Amino acid sequence: MTMTKLKQRSLLGLKELSKEEIESILDRAAYWENHPVKVHTAMQGKFAANMFFENSTRTRFSFEVAEKRLGAEVLNFSAAVSSVQKGESIYDTVRTLESMGIDVGIIRLKPIGVLAELATRIKVPLINAGDGNNEHPTQALLDMYTMRKHFGQLKGLTVTIVGDVLHSRVARSNLWALQKFGVNVNFCSPPNMQAPELNASYVSMNDALKSDVVMMLRVQLERHESGMLSSAENYREHYGLTADRASKLAKHAIIMHPAPINRNVEIDDELVEHPQSRIFPQMENGVPIRMAVIERALS
Amino acid sequence: MTMTKLKQRSLLGLKELSKEEIESILDRAAYWENHPVKVHTAMQGKFAANMFFENSTRTRFSFEVAEKRLGAEVLNFSAAVSSVQKGESIYDTVRTLESMGIDVGIIRLKPIGVLAELATRIKVPLINAGDGNNEHPTQALLDMYTMRKHFGQLKGLTVTIVGDVLHSRVARSNLWALQKFGVNVNFCSPPNMQAPELNASYVSMNDALKSDVVMMLRVQLERHESGMLSSAENYREHYGLTADRASKLAKHAIIMHPAPINRNVEIDDELVEHPQSRIFPQMENGVPIRMAVIERALS
Amino acid sequence: MTMTKLKQRSLLGLKELSKEEIESILDRAAYWENHPVKVHTAMQGKFAANMFFENSTRTRFSFEVAEKRLGAEVLNFSAAVSSVQKGESIYDTVRTLESMGIDVGIIRLKPIGVLAELATRIKVPLINAGDGNNEHPTQALLDMYTMRKHFGQLKGLTVTIVGDVLHSRVARSNLWALQKFGVNVNFCSPPNMQAPELNASYVSMNDALKSDVVMMLRVQLERHESGMLSSAENYREHYGLTADRASKLAKHAIIMHPAPINRNVEIDDELVEHPQSRIFPQMENGVPIRMAVIERALS
Repeated sequence: MTMTKLKQRSLLGLKELSKEEIESILDRAAYWENHPVKVHTAMQGKFAANMFFENSTRTRFSFEVAEKRLGAEVLNFSAAVSSVQKGESIYDTVRTLESMGIDVGIIRLKPIGVLAELATRIKVPLINAGDGNNEHPTQALLDMYTMRKHFGQLKGLTVTIVGDVLHSRVARSNLWALQKFGVNVNFCSPPNMQAPELNASYVSMNDALKSDVVMMLRVQLERHESGMLSSAENYREHYGLTADRASKLAKHAIIMHPAPINRNVEIDDELVEHPQSRIFPQMENGVPIRMAVIERALS
Repeated sequence: MTMTKLKQRSLLGLKELSKEEIESILDRAAYWENHPVKVHTAMQGKFAANMFFENSTRTRFSFEVAEKRLGAEVLNFSAAVSSVQKGESIYDTVRTLESMGIDVGIIRLKPIGVLAELATRIKVPLINAGDGNNEHPTQALLDMYTMRKHFGQLKGLTVTIVGDVLHSRVARSNLWALQKFGVNVNFCSPPNMQAPELNASYVSMNDALKSDVVMMLRVQLERHESGMLSSAENYREHYGLTADRASKLAKHAIIMHPAPINRNVEIDDELVEHPQSRIFPQMENGVPIRMAVIERALS
Repeated sequence: MTMTKLKQRSLLGLKELSKEEIESILDRAAYWENHPVKVHTAMQGKFAANMFFENSTRTRFSFEVAEKRLGAEVLNFSAAVSSVQKGESIYDTVRTLESMGIDVGIIRLKPIGVLAELATRIKVPLINAGDGNNEHPTQALLDMYTMRKHFGQLKGLTVTIVGDVLHSRVARSNLWALQKFGVNVNFCSPPNMQAPELNASYVSMNDALKSDVVMMLRVQLERHESGMLSSAENYREHYGLTADRASKLAKHAIIMHPAPINRNVEIDDELVEHPQSRIFPQMENGVPIRMAVIERALS
């Protein structure tokens, strides 16, 4: 084990992470998933701070459960109830919690580029829990974990990500990470939701249904006020995973969604807990993934 | 002990609970009240999630203290700071937390009928912490516990519940549970706050003062905009427990209130901590009651 | 050890605290700072409630870290998400948490005089975490601790507090406590931010720079709508610690600020982490100070 491996390590994104590093996180998550005891001592006497400058139910609780299962003391910061309102900068908040002795910081924020800069100025390891429309690495890791669990391996799979790729950090983290594993990643999006700078092909909804994995993104229609896809009904008609479309999926294919879900917009209500859906298992897998990521940060 | 008894058990209401089940909860609460050590191991390594889709200081903290005294890890969800704002349904939130591995969920919500439906779709035991104007079982249990502690037994007592019965889940849970124990339950309410479908007599304020227990309900005048009782002063004059009225109570009688209190509306300020008041002891009793209910859910 | 010493002790302010009591808190904080293990057992099985009727990131987390490092169970109450909205009085909330069995209460509030009255009616020890514009004793203690750590002793130092003294509880607590130790405390404020009833001299900004400690206060310009200092730029020109002014400080002098900071208003951005600044060390010192104060409350 080299000195580098012993250093505390942030997780800012998957783009720069090696295939081997990703694989070791997935393997360690499998260890935690299969470990029968619920609360461990790996982080006993250590403090984790969840600093959410952007609201999130799912992601915050997933991290909190992971931290508590590792035996950590947890601090929850949510911008909506803090002095960020008084104009305090994100940096000052993170630096304040660092001064108080936290051992790892989990950060979600909207402004682009702030996380990367923070990581150069803060000494404790930081974990990206959603960074503007840049990366959401733990979401992509749990997605990969879910796929690997179902298919045995990632290599050779075809994954189509459907929806608002333009604003999606989930799409970016999955794209960059899955390609390292020899996965064929496609996008399927209306023209005003495409991100042409990303290295992936756009396919039709019909072709998307031929994939091994159909990953639906949450669509935020309020972001796209004009055009033919501006209503939920129109969106569903052209890009929604309807029950009718889902019936054309291969029997081995799976449906994924990072949630929260707009039922009957990007995905039909009855598909959410369909036997081929992995939506709630994804949330289940988020806990061991985050345990592995936090443990790695402190290792 | 039958297999049914060994199953994890939700507590949705007292209406359907047997007298024996209620009694065993009250007895177990007495055990916890008398146990000198503060933090136990009964729930060590288990997760409790408090999911409050309706605000509450008292009830949430009471559950949190109970959970922590049982040694549990606690997750607090409050709708006001979550993605419920983004339209996520209550079901999706509860199902999400279930996926993350919680062992018991405590739920407070407003919409009628949602809790009953949730309980059919969620596998972990759920505990009702206030369900629209339907039931608030742990409040009624702590009320019964408080009465039993003072009077030795419930049978034969006369309890009058005064105020807005129409909107009160506390009145309903107390009515249904107390009647199983042979308690004579009356209501005393202005006409626009009565619930004629409930099986209890309405008595005058003068007769209410002859009861063994006078239970005042919080009145929310903003719900009743018109009529002679629309002002706090008018309400106090006709249905408030004033110092003058309290002086007519029997010496053995007690005053109760589920809180929060509108001082000098439904109850005079000086009565809140009167020797015959059990208002703060009710809150004290809430902790062992909730410990017993949570323990039962996981047994 | 006398019986008085064994009693549970509140900390409402430093004005009435003896020099010896303050010294023993500073000494105990040094013990905690130098203790290598992070989580202790001093408060195992005990409950601390942080009751913040006024928002605060820094102070609340500092107390929470201190409580968790002492091994306590922590309850966080924030007025913005509670039934205080429903008109419940501060007293009822504190009394409610007391009824539920908390062992110590940390309170921050705005209304003047309420804390002093609470302390006469509540039995558990209370710690003032900011009380209107009256006192903020743990802030002053951590300030004194920071000064003592840098200078070795307090006696003979000159400390100038710059800014809105009129509204500052930090200024008051520091003034009253530092004077007990033979510190020469001055103020430097625009005329509309002075508090003539306090026993300290006002000096010019130029003279302030000759002090051993220059303590900048947060200025809330929204409180001072008219006059020549109503803009941030004007304030900075006359009373801000600019890089230019800081260059005139003695080499041994230190810069302090209770935070949150208005960068480039009362203090220039580049001074916040200047070698002579103790702003983030102040936050670091807040944790052992609060551990000492809580431990004392329960001793």
